[in-house]
Amino acid sequence: MLELAHAAWPDVAAHLRERPGVAILPFGALEQHGPHLPLSTDTLQADAVARRLAERLDAVLLPAVAFGNTWSNEALPGTVSLGADTVAAVCGDLAASLERGGFAALVVVNGDFGNRLPLQTAAEASAVRGGIPVLVLDYPGLTEIGDRVKETPWAAPGLCHADEIETSMVLAIAPALVHRDRMVADYPELPADFGLRQMALAPLSATGVFGDPRPATPEKGERIIAHVVDESERIVRRVLSALGLS
Amino acid sequence: MLELAHAAWPDVAAHLRERPGVAILPFGALEQHGPHLPLSTDTLQADAVARRLAERLDAVLLPAVAFGNTWSNEALPGTVSLGADTVAAVCGDLAASLERGGFAALVVVNGDFGNRLPLQTAAEASAVRGGIPVLVLDYPGLTEIGDRVKETPWAAPGLCHADEIETSMVLAIAPALVHRDRMVADYPELPADFGLRQMALAPLSATGVFGDPRPATPEKGERIIAHVVDESERIVRRVLSALGLS
Amino acid sequence: MLELAHAAWPDVAAHLRERPGVAILPFGALEQHGPHLPLSTDTLQADAVARRLAERLDAVLLPAVAFGNTWSNEALPGTVSLGADTVAAVCGDLAASLERGGFAALVVVNGDFGNRLPLQTAAEASAVRGGIPVLVLDYPGLTEIGDRVKETPWAAPGLCHADEIETSMVLAIAPALVHRDRMVADYPELPADFGLRQMALAPLSATGVFGDPRPATPEKGERIIAHVVDESERIVRRVLSALGLS
Amino acid sequence: MLELAHAAWPDVAAHLRERPGVAILPFGALEQHGPHLPLSTDTLQADAVARRLAERLDAVLLPAVAFGNTWSNEALPGTVSLGADTVAAVCGDLAASLERGGFAALVVVNGDFGNRLPLQTAAEASAVRGGIPVLVLDYPGLTEIGDRVKETPWAAPGLCHADEIETSMVLAIAPALVHRDRMVADYPELPADFGLRQMALAPLSATGVFGDPRPATPEKGERIIAHVVDESERIVRRVLSALGLS
Amino acid sequence: MLELAHAAWPDVAAHLRERPGVAILPFGALEQHGPHLPLSTDTLQADAVARRLAERLDAVLLPAVAFGNTWSNEALPGTVSLGADTVAAVCGDLAASLERGGFAALVVVNGDFGNRLPLQTAAEASAVRGGIPVLVLDYPGLTEIGDRVKETPWAAPGLCHADEIETSMVLAIAPALVHRDRMVADYPELPADFGLRQMALAPLSATGVFGDPRPATPEKGERIIAHVVDESERIVRRVLSALGLS
Amino acid sequence: MLELAHAAWPDVAAHLRERPGVAILPFGALEQHGPHLPLSTDTLQADAVARRLAERLDAVLLPAVAFGNTWSNEALPGTVSLGADTVAAVCGDLAASLERGGFAALVVVNGDFGNRLPLQTAAEASAVRGGIPVLVLDYPGLTEIGDRVKETPWAAPGLCHADEIETSMVLAIAPALVHRDRMVADYPELPADFGLRQMALAPLSATGVFGDPRPATPEKGERIIAHVVDESERIVRRVLSALGLS
Repeated sequence: MLELAHAAWPDVAAHLRERPGVAILPFGALEQHGPHLPLSTDTLQADAVARRLAERLDAVLLPAVAFGNTWSNEALPGTVSLGADTVAAVCGDLAASLERGGFAALVVVNGDFGNRLPLQTAAEASAVRGGIPVLVLDYPGLTEIGDRVKETPWAAPGLCHADEIETSMVLAIAPALVHRDRMVADYPELPADFGLRQMALAPLSATGVFGDPRPATPEKGERIIAHVVDESERIVRRVLSALGLS
Repeated sequence: MLELAHAAWPDVAAHLRERPGVAILPFGALEQHGPHLPLSTDTLQADAVARRLAERLDAVLLPAVAFGNTWSNEALPGTVSLGADTVAAVCGDLAASLERGGFAALVVVNGDFGNRLPLQTAAEASAVRGGIPVLVLDYPGLTEIGDRVKETPWAAPGLCHADEIETSMVLAIAPALVHRDRMVADYPELPADFGLRQMALAPLSATGVFGDPRPATPEKGERIIAHVVDESERIVRRVLSALGLS
Repeated sequence: MLELAHAAWPDVAAHLRERPGVAILPFGALEQHGPHLPLSTDTLQADAVARRLAERLDAVLLPAVAFGNTWSNEALPGTVSLGADTVAAVCGDLAASLERGGFAALVVVNGDFGNRLPLQTAAEASAVRGGIPVLVLDYPGLTEIGDRVKETPWAAPGLCHADEIETSMVLAIAPALVHRDRMVADYPELPADFGLRQMALAPLSATGVFGDPRPATPEKGERIIAHVVDESERIVRRVLSALGLS
Repeated sequence: MLELAHAAWPDVAAHLRERPGVAILPFGALEQHGPHLPLSTDTLQADAVARRLAERLDAVLLPAVAFGNTWSNEALPGTVSLGADTVAAVCGDLAASLERGGFAALVVVNGDFGNRLPLQTAAEASAVRGGIPVLVLDYPGLTEIGDRVKETPWAAPGLCHADEIETSMVLAIAPALVHRDRMVADYPELPADFGLRQMALAPLSATGVFGDPRPATPEKGERIIAHVVDESERIVRRVLSALGLS
Repeated sequence: MLELAHAAWPDVAAHLRERPGVAILPFGALEQHGPHLPLSTDTLQADAVARRLAERLDAVLLPAVAFGNTWSNEALPGTVSLGADTVAAVCGDLAASLERGGFAALVVVNGDFGNRLPLQTAAEASAVRGGIPVLVLDYPGLTEIGDRVKETPWAAPGLCHADEIETSMVLAIAPALVHRDRMVADYPELPADFGLRQMALAPLSATGVFGDPRPATPEKGERIIAHVVDESERIVRRVLSALGLS
Repeated sequence: MLELAHAAWPDVAAHLRERPGVAILPFGALEQHGPHLPLSTDTLQADAVARRLAERLDAVLLPAVAFGNTWSNEALPGTVSLGADTVAAVCGDLAASLERGGFAALVVVNGDFGNRLPLQTAAEASAVRGGIPVLVLDYPGLTEIGDRVKETPWAAPGLCHADEIETSMVLAIAPALVHRDRMVADYPELPADFGLRQMALAPLSATGVFGDPRPATPEKGERIIAHVVDESERIVRRVLSALGLS
């Protein structure tokens, strides 16, 4: 694995001489995650998954993008958002630059719900113009492993925000950033059309929590991350194999 | 100082209740810096300066943007660039989001030459639309302290790339990332119109070095950073005072 | 139900005086659907679903958009595509115009896979700017009813193109446009990374068929459409109720 | 003639093997046309003209675009408008896609005044980039035949909206959509600068009518359409001949 | 009349205190006009007309825009063109700035065929957003007076390029810039579809002339200009009166 | 020197046959310059410098762009501004058109502070896409010669607006446009952060003057212009030589 932020250019040249040139980009966000989790939660998680994935694949790890499309959480302080167009532009520019630099594929490990549309839009645009393949991963297997690991109910199907899952993951990655004393359970009454249309998230919960973070443990977090990395690896290997890059 | 990446939303709320809301954004790049310095050199430096500045001002530190407008160094591997428009969009979006979130000013600590135009463009656009003031700092005082600290000549007036200055700064910030054994001096013959028009940088130097990094020391780096932080603080305080924010 | 294409302006005025103003837009495509189905297959289907939905809800039916984002099928003749940005612009413009015209919500019945990203992008943009809610439906319940109705296997999970399902639907809507004599089964060997990343569809199948259309019947088509309309109605009613529009 | 909406891809392949590939696109609008005419009046008319033209030329008929740039009629309910930029994008995208698909020319039969500028803009853009020729027709000969057929005066020179001409045309195309009992004459007093600068139309007439639709007959409509088709055919043949496409 | 280029700001303030604030903008081009006329022909003509118009109306004359959308003449040297989008942006920006500065209307005297679409597009955009009225004049009455004054035939109906008309106009405005010794007649055989679709002009004529400039005289030019100014004045007065600005 | 506005196309062809094709573009503005100087001050100055430069280099002089990015002076009447994006588009379009027309380089003589960012942005964009070199000159040597010539103090370091320098320059170029009787000295108290961030200029001075224009003379103006032209020539020759164009 080559961590690009720490490498010098001859290291990259050497890596690319012997490997197909697969870059892995953690795309995070700066977004409220309740009173107990850091605003960088999405970035920490995406970076952790991307880092392990890069190790497994002996790929190139890009530094994380620390901001995402988080308009839906702007109602709570500290959320600082890019527009969806800008997220797509960042991803598209990096893919094109990597391509010019001799890379063969870009894998994006996305850590934020709001980035899904713009990242897929950038991936499609690269495909349309015949650019390098851009593969966007949204924590494959998360719901599955969440169902196995969680002791508390989901606030809504597929909704995972500042809850037992996310808290466990941050406890596994950066425990010093978790305020255990501030953990509260919050199961806000969601509008009947939640999940059916685009709506802001933060106004729905006074705490910014959607679930019960209290039973979170680093062990659970480790299990979750390991499973997501396993699933991510499986998918990326399948894609790279199909592309003749492995 | 509040490090936003590590804070939770109630910390931000508390900070903003008692302070004017000054956000500091390190804007870096992923760019070749010779065989001995990491590709994240600009990000490391901008982050270090921004962090100290935030401490001095008891301001809010944003996570660094790790990519910049580095087309001029794409000729050497590992340089991964955003377009100039995208750099402007990132800065403009963050300024607007901070404004919606109750912040009163954004200070950008820019670590990359190619970001200057787009960051100033974003700052002007914020001024034109009556948004919060965006102040872009390009290492004020760097040439001055460089002249005092350097033992080796500049490759060109104002040109500071993988040389004694930058190497000293990284030695002070992240010494483990510096390959001392790879240091070479390179004073490429520059075209007669160097600095007079926009041109790519990397093709001019086979090593990516512009100067002599060998006499670099962490002590020199510390002196340089300290001076840049002093000058930055002086400028920001003057601006905040004029804006009634201090 | 008010079919806008056939109505005159006083009819609309009367409708809006007594109802909340819900507009339903079928968004189709002009895209190859094998040798036996018309290029307007997606538009016919979206229009049929939208029409019944409008009847159930006593809502306003917009005329169908007959083109979509179908770059992935351009390899076969007759596919005529809009760019993704243009699809988003069409949807966004119509939502904004409907809003200025006194409508309270826009429901998009999407008939083409390639429209999903840009339509959701437009829906999000409307939410971000505080515009009327835009609800994008992608044939809810289709896989479920497909599993119940189909006698032939899927070419791939979730892949529904010129197969038994789509052929049945067109047989139910516009049987005269189906070339029964041209029906062929085609289960192309899909690349191992099919469905994992953005890729063109048409190059994968020489016929443009993905499955076996031969056992298709209008009765199956009717069952499929009815189920999708039921599910669509259920979802829209839930949203309208949550919005206080029913 | 090949109606693309009804054709399957092998039909298009066969057509293009033996003919030069001329596509005809009716570009309509959803726009108020008085109390007696349907909102789709412009689309119906453009489609009728385009269809006959395609028959005469044995060309390919595209499905109609049912929305146009109708901001100037938004004051009356049911008018749903695209922006001018979006109209240009739709036309430009279709031209480029047709070009990639092997077509040699695009003829646009425009049914709405507001589409003129953006369609011509798209046509010019195609010419500038060396794309296929895009020929925009705005009902050639309409004023001429109107002068011959009309029994009632024009509301203003060149102004043809929900009057005897348009009503006759819809009576010839889709008589069931005309509310004969709602026909009223309306000769609003137009501002002195009418026709001299861009201005909204709908606010000038309480009924949305500009003229007297009452003497309209399907026979008149047929004569009008026939003449416009004749003139259109003459022009297109001249262009195709000059392009070596006939 | 106030010539803005020569005025100082208090002169403008005084003018606006007592008059409605009508600005007149000559929009020209830098475009080949045969071997005998200067590349600035369109700008000279637009400026001459705009200047007299401003005098008649006691309005404010803006400095001329000396470049236009002249892609169709790029085949001959010295033609330097803006894109159509840029022409629209220039006009739109000036209208918006004039509006912020207290002006009530903008009259554009357009001197170049290629500017028509983008200027009208900008005028419409101003109308759509409720901005100040933008009136675009394309030499009203030119064909009429041309028919009366010309001794030589038109190269094509409505085609007026480096011919007797344009040469007469420049002889009246800036005789020193006309090369009498280089005048040649050129009636190129035009393609059968000339004027029916967007096409480049310059490739059609080896000389860049379309007609016979030889009988041109300054007296004819004066008559032409005077008539165009008369017609322009009549139109503008009608518009200003309708707007309540006179 | 070839003045493009006055040349006909064969003159350009002849010029380009024997010379490398260097175009010089004066980029001005329409901006308040105190009660005594014309709004076209920046354009007059840029044109004068560009003209002499073109003579020295036997280059091609383009007509001046008479509008610039002057939002910062909109508070005083008569300032009419383009947006920064539009200034960049004008410059970028002209560079690309010149390139298509066989020119080898574009030199922009910029007369307005607000144009700096967008012109450099356009120059960089041309470099990134591999277009012809675009060299932007901002009156090189102005401060130097100002220090030598001025008898009155600067209103702020580097601030030169309607003061002794600018007034002297206009006295040398177009003395009839200077209102000697309106000259006033104005040394407004500038905010403490003046020059440190983007801010509007005009609101800072009631007169629009920043300095003391009264000791201005045409002789001083001539010295200033001559020095700026000398410095400009020196720089352009260096660039052209490096590019192999001299």
